[in-house]
Amino acid sequence: MAPVADLKDELDIVIPTIRNLDFLEQWRPFFQPYHLIIVQDGDPSNAIQVPNGFDYELYNRNHVNKVLGPKASCISFKDSACRCFGFLVSKKKYIFTIDDDCFVAKDPSGKEINALAQHIQNLLKPSTPLFFNTLYDPFAEGADFVRGYPFSLREGVSTAISHGLWLNIPDYDAPTQLVKPRERNTRYVDAVMTIPKGTLFPMCGMNLAFDRELIGPAMYFGLMGDGQPIGRYDDMWAGWCAKVICDHLGLGVKTGLPYIWHSKASNPFVNLKKEYKGIYWQEDMIPFFQSIVLPKECKTVQECYIELAKRVKDKLGPVDPYFQKLGDAMVTWIEAWNELNPPPQTAALAHTNGVEKN
Amino acid sequence: MAPVADLKDELDIVIPTIRNLDFLEQWRPFFQPYHLIIVQDGDPSNAIQVPNGFDYELYNRNHVNKVLGPKASCISFKDSACRCFGFLVSKKKYIFTIDDDCFVAKDPSGKEINALAQHIQNLLKPSTPLFFNTLYDPFAEGADFVRGYPFSLREGVSTAISHGLWLNIPDYDAPTQLVKPRERNTRYVDAVMTIPKGTLFPMCGMNLAFDRELIGPAMYFGLMGDGQPIGRYDDMWAGWCAKVICDHLGLGVKTGLPYIWHSKASNPFVNLKKEYKGIYWQEDMIPFFQSIVLPKECKTVQECYIELAKRVKDKLGPVDPYFQKLGDAMVTWIEAWNELNPPPQTAALAHTNGVEKN
Repeated sequence: MAPVADLKDELDIVIPTIRNLDFLEQWRPFFQPYHLIIVQDGDPSNAIQVPNGFDYELYNRNHVNKVLGPKASCISFKDSACRCFGFLVSKKKYIFTIDDDCFVAKDPSGKEINALAQHIQNLLKPSTPLFFNTLYDPFAEGADFVRGYPFSLREGVSTAISHGLWLNIPDYDAPTQLVKPRERNTRYVDAVMTIPKGTLFPMCGMNLAFDRELIGPAMYFGLMGDGQPIGRYDDMWAGWCAKVICDHLGLGVKTGLPYIWHSKASNPFVNLKKEYKGIYWQEDMIPFFQSIVLPKECKTVQECYIELAKRVKDKLGPVDPYFQKLGDAMVTWIEAWNELNPPPQTAALAHTNGVEKN
Repeated sequence: MAPVADLKDELDIVIPTIRNLDFLEQWRPFFQPYHLIIVQDGDPSNAIQVPNGFDYELYNRNHVNKVLGPKASCISFKDSACRCFGFLVSKKKYIFTIDDDCFVAKDPSGKEINALAQHIQNLLKPSTPLFFNTLYDPFAEGADFVRGYPFSLREGVSTAISHGLWLNIPDYDAPTQLVKPRERNTRYVDAVMTIPKGTLFPMCGMNLAFDRELIGPAMYFGLMGDGQPIGRYDDMWAGWCAKVICDHLGLGVKTGLPYIWHSKASNPFVNLKKEYKGIYWQEDMIPFFQSIVLPKECKTVQECYIELAKRVKDKLGPVDPYFQKLGDAMVTWIEAWNELNPPPQTAALAHTNGVEKN
């Protein structure tokens, strides 16, 4: 039986890549009904092979420069952070993004996991960030809110982000990779849960879905890779920014199911070099994000993000000049977002004007 | 192979009961090495049958009155809240408490789960309340901290509470029981996690362990049952008080594994009557606990708890006079605790004095 392709016309799959996309063959039954946005990292003259039968658009660096002009400076080069360009150009309500070394995992019964279907379920059902439910997702089949869960909080809030996990190669930093080269994640934890309000988490971009309308402008993956002093912190950065904004706007973030099969550990020595400054700066970044209280006046994701950019420059700028540059790039990103995604109000107004003119 | 009885001389098992303790037969391989404290609820003239071969002490209401004198008023009657008397009279560092309708559960491989051993492991390993780890307990076999987890937070904090879960009959409130009479919990979630700082949770007393030295005085199960307007909120109350104090003192609370097999749903109509006020008041209690910021001067659990008692009377007293009574009982409980458990300082001082006199 072919899987049901929920939200077929409302979701784009964003894939950053530097190689051929053979991994799509395994995902074919699940992904083929959807539109793919492929962001080619590195040398634009390399040809990316996309298996037949997929509906896709492909952007390389030349396209990025053409679409964004001088604002292209906010999109990273030679780092998977470039994936956020795909978020920018999508016109859909939902995004699922996945790395090209991620394959279909199996649940303990041996059944192939339709990761995308689980993400969609996570996004369409509410989150519960204000109080912890000990039986995990109260909206899952066979589960509910337990005794002592306030009834006024049982409606939950809209879910903005669904963070999926990885069997086989865990998402470790370089030092942990070096110390535990043979560790594999074999623990299938059959749970989805909301990350409580006020709690930060390490968001991994390997297997991630989100509601673009609710949180899209906060999903900026920063300045990483070529010409930058840091790499492999793109998704972390986006996660910290997005979580702080979700908390402020009353949106939910879930983590847990679905699992994908992460096939290949990246080189820990290369990673160590990329991560070094991140590991170091992280000790300042985390307290910074933990202490953020956004003003009530910030009512949209864009407003929150611009405010955050200001604080990044003010508070993290003294840690390293990199954060001045990053703060500026955050503003550029929002400008690019607004240009490519005129706010619904403006769009509605434009439409109304059009009608009035007739 | 007989299971290893960790902490044999440092842990008491506290069981509140109104019936025979046949359920212990199933637990014999796991519990027999430990000392049991049985708190008999209801009519003291009923004889409680304890299976042969267990080392135990049994307290009925007459004993409670004798041990505590006028302070016995703080111990509930005809409610499992009476279990906290067992916490009071224990002289051990750790407590495991379990209900007499809880049996040995099996993991998905069919192996019997030694719940106590898992609780001990949970308590002996650190908690991580300051940042969420997406691969759950970083101290579990085959797991670690993921990329983006600040290194300065990887030592974690001491674990004060280990909250275990239930297969078969879930711990639902009366309304949910009524609406879903046939729902059974069959989902075995293979995870232990720290409940983040600042997040409240519904603590169930059915399958619970804690470090008495770290958090004992906060594990007061309130005024419930006979003569009180409320029941079935004993463990919830203790959980909210204890969590707020753990957060203030930098202690950890874990939930998840181990599972027990909860055999029998209690009568939802009876439960509804007991819970009614709790369900109603909960809407005031939760915002109250969520807004608690304890003063820096409160450095011991007792100091925190006395401060909390004061706030309960001030802030919840206006909701219902019951909270005035409860606030007073909280103070009485701490007085009883200090009487039966002289602070180590005093004990050390007494000892030193003794030495000096020789």
